[in-house]
Amino acid sequence: MIEQSTFSVEPWALRETGLDLDRLAQSESIFALANGHLGLRGNLDEGEPHGLPGTYVNGLYEVRPLPHAEPAYGDPEAGQTIVNVTNGKIIRLLLEDEPFDVRYGELRSHERVLDLRAGLLRRTVEWASPAGKAVRVTSTRLVSLAYRSLAAIQFEVEPLGEGPTPVVVQSELVANEPLPGGGEDPRAAAALSSPLVSEQSTAHDMRAVLVHVTKDSGLRLAAGMDHVADRPDVEATSESEDDLARVSGATEIPAGERLRFVKFLAYGFSSVRSEPAVRDQVEAALSEARHIGWDGLLAAQGSYLDEFWERADVELDGDAEVQQAVRVALFHVLQSGARAERRAIPAKGLTGPGYDGHAFWDTEAFVLPVLTYTEPGAAGDALRWRHSTLELARQRAAQLGLEGAAFPWRTIAGEECSGYWPAGTAAFHIGADIAYATSRYAAATGDEAFERDVGAELLMETARLWRSLGHHDPRGRFRIEGVTGPDEYSAVADNNVYTNLLAEHNLRAAADASKRYADVAARLGVDPEEAAAWRDAADAVVIPHDDALQVHAQAEGFTQHAVWDFAGTKPSEYPLLLNFPYFDLYRKQVVKQADLVLALHVRGDAFTDDEKARDFDYYERLTVRDSSLSACTQSVIAAEVGHLELAYDYLGEAALVDLDDLEHNTRDGLHIASLAGTWIAIVAGLGGLRDHRGNLSFAPRLPEAITRLRFRLEFQGRRLKVEVKPREAIYALLTGEPIEVEHHGERFEVPREQAITRPVPPAPVREAPRQPPGREPARRRRGRSNP
Amino acid sequence: MIEQSTFSVEPWALRETGLDLDRLAQSESIFALANGHLGLRGNLDEGEPHGLPGTYVNGLYEVRPLPHAEPAYGDPEAGQTIVNVTNGKIIRLLLEDEPFDVRYGELRSHERVLDLRAGLLRRTVEWASPAGKAVRVTSTRLVSLAYRSLAAIQFEVEPLGEGPTPVVVQSELVANEPLPGGGEDPRAAAALSSPLVSEQSTAHDMRAVLVHVTKDSGLRLAAGMDHVADRPDVEATSESEDDLARVSGATEIPAGERLRFVKFLAYGFSSVRSEPAVRDQVEAALSEARHIGWDGLLAAQGSYLDEFWERADVELDGDAEVQQAVRVALFHVLQSGARAERRAIPAKGLTGPGYDGHAFWDTEAFVLPVLTYTEPGAAGDALRWRHSTLELARQRAAQLGLEGAAFPWRTIAGEECSGYWPAGTAAFHIGADIAYATSRYAAATGDEAFERDVGAELLMETARLWRSLGHHDPRGRFRIEGVTGPDEYSAVADNNVYTNLLAEHNLRAAADASKRYADVAARLGVDPEEAAAWRDAADAVVIPHDDALQVHAQAEGFTQHAVWDFAGTKPSEYPLLLNFPYFDLYRKQVVKQADLVLALHVRGDAFTDDEKARDFDYYERLTVRDSSLSACTQSVIAAEVGHLELAYDYLGEAALVDLDDLEHNTRDGLHIASLAGTWIAIVAGLGGLRDHRGNLSFAPRLPEAITRLRFRLEFQGRRLKVEVKPREAIYALLTGEPIEVEHHGERFEVPREQAITRPVPPAPVREAPRQPPGREPARRRRGRSNP
Repeated sequence: MIEQSTFSVEPWALRETGLDLDRLAQSESIFALANGHLGLRGNLDEGEPHGLPGTYVNGLYEVRPLPHAEPAYGDPEAGQTIVNVTNGKIIRLLLEDEPFDVRYGELRSHERVLDLRAGLLRRTVEWASPAGKAVRVTSTRLVSLAYRSLAAIQFEVEPLGEGPTPVVVQSELVANEPLPGGGEDPRAAAALSSPLVSEQSTAHDMRAVLVHVTKDSGLRLAAGMDHVADRPDVEATSESEDDLARVSGATEIPAGERLRFVKFLAYGFSSVRSEPAVRDQVEAALSEARHIGWDGLLAAQGSYLDEFWERADVELDGDAEVQQAVRVALFHVLQSGARAERRAIPAKGLTGPGYDGHAFWDTEAFVLPVLTYTEPGAAGDALRWRHSTLELARQRAAQLGLEGAAFPWRTIAGEECSGYWPAGTAAFHIGADIAYATSRYAAATGDEAFERDVGAELLMETARLWRSLGHHDPRGRFRIEGVTGPDEYSAVADNNVYTNLLAEHNLRAAADASKRYADVAARLGVDPEEAAAWRDAADAVVIPHDDALQVHAQAEGFTQHAVWDFAGTKPSEYPLLLNFPYFDLYRKQVVKQADLVLALHVRGDAFTDDEKARDFDYYERLTVRDSSLSACTQSVIAAEVGHLELAYDYLGEAALVDLDDLEHNTRDGLHIASLAGTWIAIVAGLGGLRDHRGNLSFAPRLPEAITRLRFRLEFQGRRLKVEVKPREAIYALLTGEPIEVEHHGERFEVPREQAITRPVPPAPVREAPRQPPGREPARRRRGRSNP
Repeated sequence: MIEQSTFSVEPWALRETGLDLDRLAQSESIFALANGHLGLRGNLDEGEPHGLPGTYVNGLYEVRPLPHAEPAYGDPEAGQTIVNVTNGKIIRLLLEDEPFDVRYGELRSHERVLDLRAGLLRRTVEWASPAGKAVRVTSTRLVSLAYRSLAAIQFEVEPLGEGPTPVVVQSELVANEPLPGGGEDPRAAAALSSPLVSEQSTAHDMRAVLVHVTKDSGLRLAAGMDHVADRPDVEATSESEDDLARVSGATEIPAGERLRFVKFLAYGFSSVRSEPAVRDQVEAALSEARHIGWDGLLAAQGSYLDEFWERADVELDGDAEVQQAVRVALFHVLQSGARAERRAIPAKGLTGPGYDGHAFWDTEAFVLPVLTYTEPGAAGDALRWRHSTLELARQRAAQLGLEGAAFPWRTIAGEECSGYWPAGTAAFHIGADIAYATSRYAAATGDEAFERDVGAELLMETARLWRSLGHHDPRGRFRIEGVTGPDEYSAVADNNVYTNLLAEHNLRAAADASKRYADVAARLGVDPEEAAAWRDAADAVVIPHDDALQVHAQAEGFTQHAVWDFAGTKPSEYPLLLNFPYFDLYRKQVVKQADLVLALHVRGDAFTDDEKARDFDYYERLTVRDSSLSACTQSVIAAEVGHLELAYDYLGEAALVDLDDLEHNTRDGLHIASLAGTWIAIVAGLGGLRDHRGNLSFAPRLPEAITRLRFRLEFQGRRLKVEVKPREAIYALLTGEPIEVEHHGERFEVPREQAITRPVPPAPVREAPRQPPGREPARRRRGRSNP
């Protein structure tokens, strides 16, 4: 067995040149291919060994009971869990009757490459069977970004010995695969056993289709495969049963020749359409796939990605590892959202079963800022998905005794699936996160149809929630009490700064929308009195500040809490939530993830520079980063207040969360929001991008190691390119009309066909902040060169 | 069917003169007999119909998994549930082959009487079979207070027709009875199906024994019965199988004669002893019972109760209903604790499966104040039981990262069984409640062996908890954050006044104990520095006060919360917890049960008279009394601040909680703490008893309707009698040495053989406080006469 764990550092590919079976599950997540609709984990073609087999169709979930030791009013009684659907990735190979299995015989070489420009996973293996027969197997896998129902695998077999070699290729569809148990970690998925009930199985020629329906959620899934082999002498047989379809091709490959075998996969699902309809949909997709052909799929994939990188690429000179990581990150963010269309973008994308396949606030707060400026259509789709669940959110609000819409903390289909309300239902900020993402998307795209159809309603219904959730105290201040902010080591507190500032934005944006879209307002029954009440509340919202310490309190009373005993906490006791009770975490000053610091970013317009510096310094001492949703935000504010090297360290952490498995759970799927955070740390951190009130501003500054940074943004029909060097920044329009931007406080217009260069002022000099002992980010090595 | 629901009002009995099958479960709770060790619900002798069959042995529980939708560190994984053990109450009667069943034939009369002086449940039925055969059945049931393992039933059959009547009496032991489901109310018990596994069953002559062991908790139970019949011609047969033993007696009763059949029951259980040992224990108890005989058991029961009433009786002229109710209450409080010995006193006593049979803070905060002054041995036993669980409480504290002992919020055997930590683990006040009960018991009894063996350690280990739970802020104030006070409509708040004042007491009492019992302190490693730290914390504990409103805040920030929309809450929406989510209750000013007001009582020494009046007025407007642990405390403080008629109303509510089924769940068992609260409302409310720092003080005042009140107290070896009339109070020593007491602030000695009379000053005149609309207590009708 070749043991080698790291990926080689290359600008446009992620290459693994060995196979470490202990890290198989992690690599399956990293090598996952998806298009937002269909996701295939990077399982080996031959199915085994595997870490965690996984094939996902976005929105295909099973319901399961949510048990409560002491049930209470409003507790969701059922949860939703992503289903590992019919596995179409499997292609087994028999070489003179011996199954190709990397655990046996001799694995002479094994390489997998995720090609970020071509959108392909390539695998090349040289293997000799226990009997000594050698073969080169090459597979190339794609999940089509252009055709959302389709995936394809080209599988090539090249015997390396002398004389003709008899081979059998078995291509399969397997439903209800047994899954390894999830262990005790609450973050892992609930493994469902045999969630799919067979409705139909057919096989003829080299095509087969299995139709299943989920037991309790009643969702119908058809999975189909078809094949093309390039040797006329291949003898094909096919068969199907309830949970298995198999197409076998037997042939003899003469010495020096090879077999090329292409497998087309199609998936379709529906909650309403009949079994014949869903099956026909998949049969049609297979016919389409055969018609397009392997080369056609490859070409479409390449074009799709060329366009994406043209809009979205980030170039970074001076750190090849982060250069690679940001492209891997953007690739996976794209894969999670590109074709999700009216489905959620889950926290793990479609790369694994972690968090039960649920979508959280991650989408709006971390993923959509990236998609809005790089793949705006996908951002709009994600918000349209939220809007499609509005009626469920209204019902949830009513159940909770509130007005407007209460969006779920975690969900697949729109129903609240959180089983622990202090860190679920109480995290009402998700409503404001959705509203903020709505405003940002509308401002960045000028998409008026979106605003009229979707945006205005989202803003007004979430504003209603805030108005009914908060109250004016006798002094007229608007208080929002008993809610949980982003930091999950605090809960059910009064006047969380992040929540209140986002709610303020939400209330104002809704009031504005009610004027701009009077027809929508009228339809919702929003009258000028109600809009005025939103503005009143926004004007009076309480922002707790500790005057003695001269910092903002994350929530009222926070700065009076005892400080966590960091010195007495062992490194093995992180993440704290696995080793300490919530009651203890909640009542102390210890921060899981940026909360007040996230407010400094998203609502930076509500703080002075000095406040930001003092607040960052204060919260930096308390933040343990037990969540992957923290480093990127700390990076952004560290950069803003002048701690550029620290910003760079945090950028590294966000970028490497999955490549280096920093959270030890990449096996369950990638941290899509943290990957998105890589872009945020670069563009909003080093580039200083802010978009307060829909205006673009930049305040770029580079750490020492980075000699040049270039990124692009889509904004109101323009494509803007920003290039940052140590002492100057250059703004250029690639397409579209002139646009006004701000650079370190100076506003100017970027004209067509002329780049504007501005000097980068030196960073303010401030004392380096301290982190809790042992929780400092890993220092980026300085000045890594490109390979 | 005779339909009549109310009990007749009598001073020393509770008489039901009809049978309402719809209220059967309620009456089964009210007619339950118990001695603290063994409890029999008031099920009909013939077993059916029943509301809820119930036979309980204190401490005999089964474990069950506690499911958590999102498990977290420190969540208990298993709960404990009281088991309905082998039912020995059943005596079926066949009258000429027709089973006696009140649902068929003609029920001519049905009377049940709970005799509070004799300690018996008497039942007299006249019934005619569908075929017209009439019979009078009289049964008398007792659970022996003198012999804790024993119960007995005398069953008399008197045919009312002419000619001889063939009858068969079938007496049974039945294990694993099917139980009706618990419904959706989280307060009802988890019904366990067939928790008992048979180990042995024997029957010979008229004796039978069944031995079972609980499936998962592994507790071994033997239940045995033996019989005596008074007619020599009774032909007896006996048989036994796994879950059933039956002794049948067949005879012919000549006209004008009757059959008297006595059943002796014995129960034994052990977690360690072998099956033969536990069986032998029960066989021995049965032999003892036969030896003592029915009349002997009756006599012992009478003597036991004579002594109790001599110590504990409360006489109240002017309200016969409350007079009866307080005796019923005292009777049931005695039954719950008399022979519990080293077992818990559950919230429902041994009268039903409610709250899974768990003990809560109810015991120390409401039941022990009564037992301490009326049945002090039982109070000491209850605290010795707590002490026996100290090691588990130390382990729980360590698990939670705390020092000392964290007693469980709910438990049977000492392990934390709370499945919802914000209203469980976070209610740390239970430790201080135990400490306060410890101090009170020690002061009231002078029981030095208790203090040395148990009390000092309880005080010091709970003090350690407070010291580690709280912290000194930069201004030196001692803060206790993130805890839940008595009011379960608030949770996880900072510096709850009740908690902090009780913790203050706990810390000081522990520091004192460490001096008085230096050897215990040394064994526990408590040095003078630690004791000094306890005093420092006590001196500096934060007591939140809203200076603008001039009232104490139940916890920090409480008075800034929005006030609950009482006007918009429908009567059907109470109790609120069944109709609103916790998040909404927690963040608003709405009080489930006395919390700050309980502090005004227990720590009344920490408030001025004016503060008490203002605080009471403020919290009265917010308190909805969705808990039965509220009315008695509101009664006490209403009386103290001068609202005597309101105090009287609340007294009525506490007294009638089960007789009138005010909480609609008496079916699941009695509210032992509310029953104890009847005594508290009378003695601490109308009598004004306080025991701050171990000194007895009184401030008696009567509402208009009550023309005279007399109560007795055991105190430091004395028996004190207090008689209160509208204008004077008379203090007399019944036994013991002279003692100093206080009457409305005046201290004096009560000498032997001479009563001291003091005038009762008029109550201060204050504006009547208001309750939330619709939540006013029912007004006591004024001037009810004795019947």
